[in-house]
Amino acid sequence: MISDKIHEECGVFGLHCKEGAKVARDIYYGLCSLQHRGQESAGICVCNTAGPIGNISFHKDMGLVRDVFSEKEMEQLQGNMGIGHVRYSTTGKSCVENAQPLVLNYLKGTLAVAHNGNIINSAELREALQSEGSIFRGDTDSEVIAFQIAKERTKTKSVEEAIKNTVTKIKGGFALLVMSPRKLIGVRDPLGIKPLCLGKLDDGYVLSSESCALSTIGATFVRDVKPGEMVIITEDGVVSDESLCGDERAHCIFEYIYFARQDSVMDGIGIYEARIRAGRALARRNQVDADIVVGVPDSGITAAVGYAQESKIPFALAFQKNSYVGRTFIKPTQGERETSVHLKLSVLEPVVKGKSIVLIDDSIVRGTTIANLIKMLRKAGAKAVHVRICSPTFLHPCYYGTDIPTDSQLIAHSLTIDEICEHIGADTLHYMELEDLSEMTGELGLCKACLDGKYPLT
Amino acid sequence: MISDKIHEECGVFGLHCKEGAKVARDIYYGLCSLQHRGQESAGICVCNTAGPIGNISFHKDMGLVRDVFSEKEMEQLQGNMGIGHVRYSTTGKSCVENAQPLVLNYLKGTLAVAHNGNIINSAELREALQSEGSIFRGDTDSEVIAFQIAKERTKTKSVEEAIKNTVTKIKGGFALLVMSPRKLIGVRDPLGIKPLCLGKLDDGYVLSSESCALSTIGATFVRDVKPGEMVIITEDGVVSDESLCGDERAHCIFEYIYFARQDSVMDGIGIYEARIRAGRALARRNQVDADIVVGVPDSGITAAVGYAQESKIPFALAFQKNSYVGRTFIKPTQGERETSVHLKLSVLEPVVKGKSIVLIDDSIVRGTTIANLIKMLRKAGAKAVHVRICSPTFLHPCYYGTDIPTDSQLIAHSLTIDEICEHIGADTLHYMELEDLSEMTGELGLCKACLDGKYPLT
Amino acid sequence: MISDKIHEECGVFGLHCKEGAKVARDIYYGLCSLQHRGQESAGICVCNTAGPIGNISFHKDMGLVRDVFSEKEMEQLQGNMGIGHVRYSTTGKSCVENAQPLVLNYLKGTLAVAHNGNIINSAELREALQSEGSIFRGDTDSEVIAFQIAKERTKTKSVEEAIKNTVTKIKGGFALLVMSPRKLIGVRDPLGIKPLCLGKLDDGYVLSSESCALSTIGATFVRDVKPGEMVIITEDGVVSDESLCGDERAHCIFEYIYFARQDSVMDGIGIYEARIRAGRALARRNQVDADIVVGVPDSGITAAVGYAQESKIPFALAFQKNSYVGRTFIKPTQGERETSVHLKLSVLEPVVKGKSIVLIDDSIVRGTTIANLIKMLRKAGAKAVHVRICSPTFLHPCYYGTDIPTDSQLIAHSLTIDEICEHIGADTLHYMELEDLSEMTGELGLCKACLDGKYPLT
Amino acid sequence: MISDKIHEECGVFGLHCKEGAKVARDIYYGLCSLQHRGQESAGICVCNTAGPIGNISFHKDMGLVRDVFSEKEMEQLQGNMGIGHVRYSTTGKSCVENAQPLVLNYLKGTLAVAHNGNIINSAELREALQSEGSIFRGDTDSEVIAFQIAKERTKTKSVEEAIKNTVTKIKGGFALLVMSPRKLIGVRDPLGIKPLCLGKLDDGYVLSSESCALSTIGATFVRDVKPGEMVIITEDGVVSDESLCGDERAHCIFEYIYFARQDSVMDGIGIYEARIRAGRALARRNQVDADIVVGVPDSGITAAVGYAQESKIPFALAFQKNSYVGRTFIKPTQGERETSVHLKLSVLEPVVKGKSIVLIDDSIVRGTTIANLIKMLRKAGAKAVHVRICSPTFLHPCYYGTDIPTDSQLIAHSLTIDEICEHIGADTLHYMELEDLSEMTGELGLCKACLDGKYPLT
Repeated sequence: MISDKIHEECGVFGLHCKEGAKVARDIYYGLCSLQHRGQESAGICVCNTAGPIGNISFHKDMGLVRDVFSEKEMEQLQGNMGIGHVRYSTTGKSCVENAQPLVLNYLKGTLAVAHNGNIINSAELREALQSEGSIFRGDTDSEVIAFQIAKERTKTKSVEEAIKNTVTKIKGGFALLVMSPRKLIGVRDPLGIKPLCLGKLDDGYVLSSESCALSTIGATFVRDVKPGEMVIITEDGVVSDESLCGDERAHCIFEYIYFARQDSVMDGIGIYEARIRAGRALARRNQVDADIVVGVPDSGITAAVGYAQESKIPFALAFQKNSYVGRTFIKPTQGERETSVHLKLSVLEPVVKGKSIVLIDDSIVRGTTIANLIKMLRKAGAKAVHVRICSPTFLHPCYYGTDIPTDSQLIAHSLTIDEICEHIGADTLHYMELEDLSEMTGELGLCKACLDGKYPLT
Repeated sequence: MISDKIHEECGVFGLHCKEGAKVARDIYYGLCSLQHRGQESAGICVCNTAGPIGNISFHKDMGLVRDVFSEKEMEQLQGNMGIGHVRYSTTGKSCVENAQPLVLNYLKGTLAVAHNGNIINSAELREALQSEGSIFRGDTDSEVIAFQIAKERTKTKSVEEAIKNTVTKIKGGFALLVMSPRKLIGVRDPLGIKPLCLGKLDDGYVLSSESCALSTIGATFVRDVKPGEMVIITEDGVVSDESLCGDERAHCIFEYIYFARQDSVMDGIGIYEARIRAGRALARRNQVDADIVVGVPDSGITAAVGYAQESKIPFALAFQKNSYVGRTFIKPTQGERETSVHLKLSVLEPVVKGKSIVLIDDSIVRGTTIANLIKMLRKAGAKAVHVRICSPTFLHPCYYGTDIPTDSQLIAHSLTIDEICEHIGADTLHYMELEDLSEMTGELGLCKACLDGKYPLT
Repeated sequence: MISDKIHEECGVFGLHCKEGAKVARDIYYGLCSLQHRGQESAGICVCNTAGPIGNISFHKDMGLVRDVFSEKEMEQLQGNMGIGHVRYSTTGKSCVENAQPLVLNYLKGTLAVAHNGNIINSAELREALQSEGSIFRGDTDSEVIAFQIAKERTKTKSVEEAIKNTVTKIKGGFALLVMSPRKLIGVRDPLGIKPLCLGKLDDGYVLSSESCALSTIGATFVRDVKPGEMVIITEDGVVSDESLCGDERAHCIFEYIYFARQDSVMDGIGIYEARIRAGRALARRNQVDADIVVGVPDSGITAAVGYAQESKIPFALAFQKNSYVGRTFIKPTQGERETSVHLKLSVLEPVVKGKSIVLIDDSIVRGTTIANLIKMLRKAGAKAVHVRICSPTFLHPCYYGTDIPTDSQLIAHSLTIDEICEHIGADTLHYMELEDLSEMTGELGLCKACLDGKYPLT
Repeated sequence: MISDKIHEECGVFGLHCKEGAKVARDIYYGLCSLQHRGQESAGICVCNTAGPIGNISFHKDMGLVRDVFSEKEMEQLQGNMGIGHVRYSTTGKSCVENAQPLVLNYLKGTLAVAHNGNIINSAELREALQSEGSIFRGDTDSEVIAFQIAKERTKTKSVEEAIKNTVTKIKGGFALLVMSPRKLIGVRDPLGIKPLCLGKLDDGYVLSSESCALSTIGATFVRDVKPGEMVIITEDGVVSDESLCGDERAHCIFEYIYFARQDSVMDGIGIYEARIRAGRALARRNQVDADIVVGVPDSGITAAVGYAQESKIPFALAFQKNSYVGRTFIKPTQGERETSVHLKLSVLEPVVKGKSIVLIDDSIVRGTTIANLIKMLRKAGAKAVHVRICSPTFLHPCYYGTDIPTDSQLIAHSLTIDEICEHIGADTLHYMELEDLSEMTGELGLCKACLDGKYPLT
């Protein structure tokens, strides 16, 4: 909600049910539960596995899932297998041409692809494909992957093989759903940078970026798709191909810190609990004498609960969120009273008045929002504001699918922590230590390149 | 968000600034902060106090504030004084004819009226007005009040006098904003059933149903309007007429329990703190051995914080809300997997698994929602669910402007507390005791007719 | 289509069918056929004559009939009797508050009113009503009439009597439809300034501003409502009250010249034929040597056909209209190539090249459009352009319900005919002579105050 | 307007102006003038010839030009060169994926293509392209052409050469606009089945399906693009490549009969005059004793003027069109009074009553509409209705880009002319004789395969 945040790129959701079932509505609900991963465009593509090959219907447009689809679209999306996608554009323009799922018509029939992630060798692959005659309609790396699969497919015996060949060629973080006329296939990058999990319904199987979307449609969580694993779902059930799996792991640390919805479990780690532990770790490391612990809604609140548990400083709610403020909202004009943050968040004055406060947030990007909130707390009578951030300082760009701004816009790139503390108007400021990340995520192999500059892929 | 709730009727917001100022945008922001009080229709009416009499512009329509107004409407609403209204219909049809503010053209010029509340002698007044020739366009008690004021105005020397005469004739709970060509007047029912408060900007004064809307526009809280008081705001400042004020008080208890936004302070009581105290009172009265305390979002969470503080049982967040589910959402069809509550709320499984839980909610109306949530908690592995409700049992209808359903739909009307406990599937169930309400609101004179059947007006 | 035109104020349409019938859809189609009489707002109000009194539903909004109503609204408009209205505002603001039908709730129940026309003593009546306590919501004379009827109704035994009393008090041109719980009543001003006619369906009766709307719904034309006559339609059939009828007639000449659709028959005169005769009269009076006769679409074309018949000069189509240009059209920016008229009308170059042309239009208001068309004709190679106008010069304002602009904007007010001819760039220019109007409308008593300044009402 | 018509496929419009100019708005106006050629989707793609290569912006969507574009889109379409397209789908689904212009990103940069027509060897070309690795997003022959050009481009030195290679491979009727980063190229099929013409502005050149769109933007008509000719427009002016031009001609006869707007001149023939001559030819061939000649709006009216001139029977307007009936119109429900044709067209009763009528229409496809109109004329009192059709009987499908329905739906396929006459309820019926077509279009080489089954391409 607060705009000074980095964004996850996309969410994917796929469903394969028995013949005769209608999956569009469940994909719709699944996508709604993944909406936090992308709010720019949404799309669903379905197919009847029993029908003639190529019998695909799809609809996609710019906007939230609830605005892109109406009953009319639902009725036209008839099929027992399908994939869906919500998008936030980090590469490629924000336009309907780039909305997913991508649907391709090629020699071997039709292919629909939904992709979350970012490919670092996309430009080279694109060029190679173009020099062999490929013609693109949009400008995303997702289209490059889709084309690569289609190209491989003309040389292989099965779509699975084509996907495997593609996976060996693309470098980056990705969770990929591919729908061929009879199969729903999910594959995850070999380091597991991007999440993907498998769920089960009475009459079918689900693939989803996050487990939170499973419970929405009444599916049970089966397991995470392994890094490098390919899961093939057909009328006959689920088959797994682990031939590209390795031992290395580089799960994106920011899924745990901020991206994932906290009712998800990702690679064995419950997000809610991870954030609770992050709050506890912060509390252990940098003790402070304060009256209350509060979190910035929504993502800072869980860590604040953990901080409170560990520090024994009482947890409190200091902010009231106005959920009626939306995208169509009339913005204050410049020169008007500065009200924009107040519109979305208000301070609970009686809670903070005269209090020394520990304020928990998940991260600081540019520092504008936290500065504003601290000002609001002080205006409401806060005696002191001690800021604690559930992640180490942001210092490096991400090449794997999040929109971390250029170095120069990262406040930690140009200011020391003390300077940031002064800049945002906090009394004290502490970030989580790099070494404490293990308290949050245990022994999990992590990609934390944005924090330490060590990129798992080159 | 959860539909099994009673609703507040309306919110009003008025602003009088110096000549030349433009108030429409601030009224818009104010109404956004009062949107929780009414989501069916919204309207703004403004006027230039320096202009020719009758120079009024207004716009109103069905829908949320953010949908009813665009930049185009803002530009047409030119004026330094204005009133706004958000509506949830408890009397009268839900149609644009009944949207407020009501604008009247009569012998003495124009009059705009915004009303929150309900008049119990509305039918008699309406009939009397009709028999004297009044012709109504809608079917609300608000129109009756507006007409009564206009009628009185033709017999009095000032609009203030007309309002006073009207107030002596109408029985019920009301907060009323009246805009005449030069004056903004606010008046509150003599028992203070409905809330109204006064705020201050550098260049003007504000009247608002709740104080939360003041901070949104950068105004400071001055004080509550007294029960029975009339506040007259003109270019020269604020004048108060307390001639109809009495000593009796009957503030609506449900503002504290559920209606009001928790960053509001109402008649001296901070809503957030009141709910914290309610949670504490619950904890003191009915002790239970449990692992965690959780609240039903959004209104039960604050009380859960209080309960946790008092009981020393750790506070936790057990539910994840999906804020992307809106009104245009495609509903699950009957016969489909039952997913509707899951769409809006999911359980944080790792939090509740194997735990004995205290679940806090503000009230139980029909019992359907809480039953659903308990089922979800158990499915997620909760060992026990002890429900604690921050209000006594609902037993009686409200005649003053809330939409408590008929007796037969109130679960507490047909079942004992033990039976309700069984019905909703809880392990134990306790409501707040009537005598404990004073722990929440102190010595405040309350209307709690819906709980004890003692109606302050007859 | 061309904006330099005067406008008719409104169209009304009412339908009373047997119990059980549903009239909303036919009223919708009827209003569509009257859409040329008003494009700003549209509304339908229906009622079940067999239901409880006051069981009225209505919907109205700004916009064209096709945009205001969807299937959803149609379904909610259940009733076997109803009235509809399309509006172009000549008095009162263009806003939804002023949209009709007006629906009133008063001592005697509900009353719906649809009105076409203008009352010249509206201000006095309004003041009188206000001084007796009436409170208006809008600022139209229609509301004044409706209120007057309601007021009279409280003193009379029937709504018919109330309407009659009202008719004796209001001065002006009007066609009025009034719907009481059991009756549909139509009344026309005693001079017949505004049109109204009666039609018949198998199961009911229709009242309509123009007969063209009758055939749309398959109704047969019965007769014009007489000036001053009141027609009362109930379950038992049609009753007529002629007690206010007189002998004087003052039918608005501009209905024949421009307002009415040419498939209508109005007070015995077929509009198409009247315009044919107008063209013939023009041809007889001012002979010219030319190659072709062409009309300005759409209203000038019929007169051009007549002119061609009389003069034996061949009729041709010289303009192509683009019917895809609508209200939402992006206007050319100032400074751009001047394309606005070309967007709506193009010249058929091969038709006009090297030709001497007689160009027929119905009237000249400001002269801008005709000047533009002449320029286009010349650019396409026309050798000469002889303009013939099917009406005498516009010199005086209209007080009875058309939006003739103020004197100073009427080109004929400041320029002589010769000067106008030069101003618009024509070779010759002739208007219809006042004395030739009788060739168009025969012995019909006419209001031609806008042409000769002789106002039938004072 | 009347649905029982065959449809033209598309319209194209391109503009190349000097650097710094903005062409989007003029393309918008041009497309509005071509809207009669396609109402399903619309699109504009522009480019700055001075900017970096690939600097293209485009917008396209389902709907009319006026609905697809708003000021917001206009502002984003910055460029001094551009192409636009309006589409009616005869091949490919009616969906946004198939909307044009198509924009491709390939080895040589970007390419935008707008296409009117139909390729008969599309399936083979598509297959060949797919077997070489091409991946399609939609299912139109336009995409096939665009891909073929892109493929050729990788093997040639210029885009012109690539287009020429493509033109030698595709068989069918087409007018093609191709926009490369610096050039606007128009090409027409070697038989000239589809129209395309060149116009000139002070600061640039225009390519348009019809000349009517030139005058709309103030451009002058230069000439038709020759069949097989390629016109290359750059900053330096216009260059023509006639190397693929031949002598054979097969201009689509239905452009003259019905498709083209009558203010267009196409391959030397003015459409308006051609239709006048068609009417005259009809009159000469089959004389009849009648009182008036009337045309079916809009396309039959011009021929009726010609018929009247030749036969000396007076021309009249018999139908009133309601231009407010649009796509969003609420359709009559089955079982309701049959009003659908009456909504769009009404009969001018006084014109036809007691008259013997010659009724002119351009063609008969299924015969439903003409039957309805004859019934309406008789109901209005017509004594006799003699139908004359400005084209020979429809007997064969069209493969070049019009949507003539399958044989079995063509009334002339299963009934003799006498039987059709009886079926539609006419007194007499005559079609234009095949040999009389030359009276309409002179010596022009025509494709009249739909009439005589002689297909110019095989």
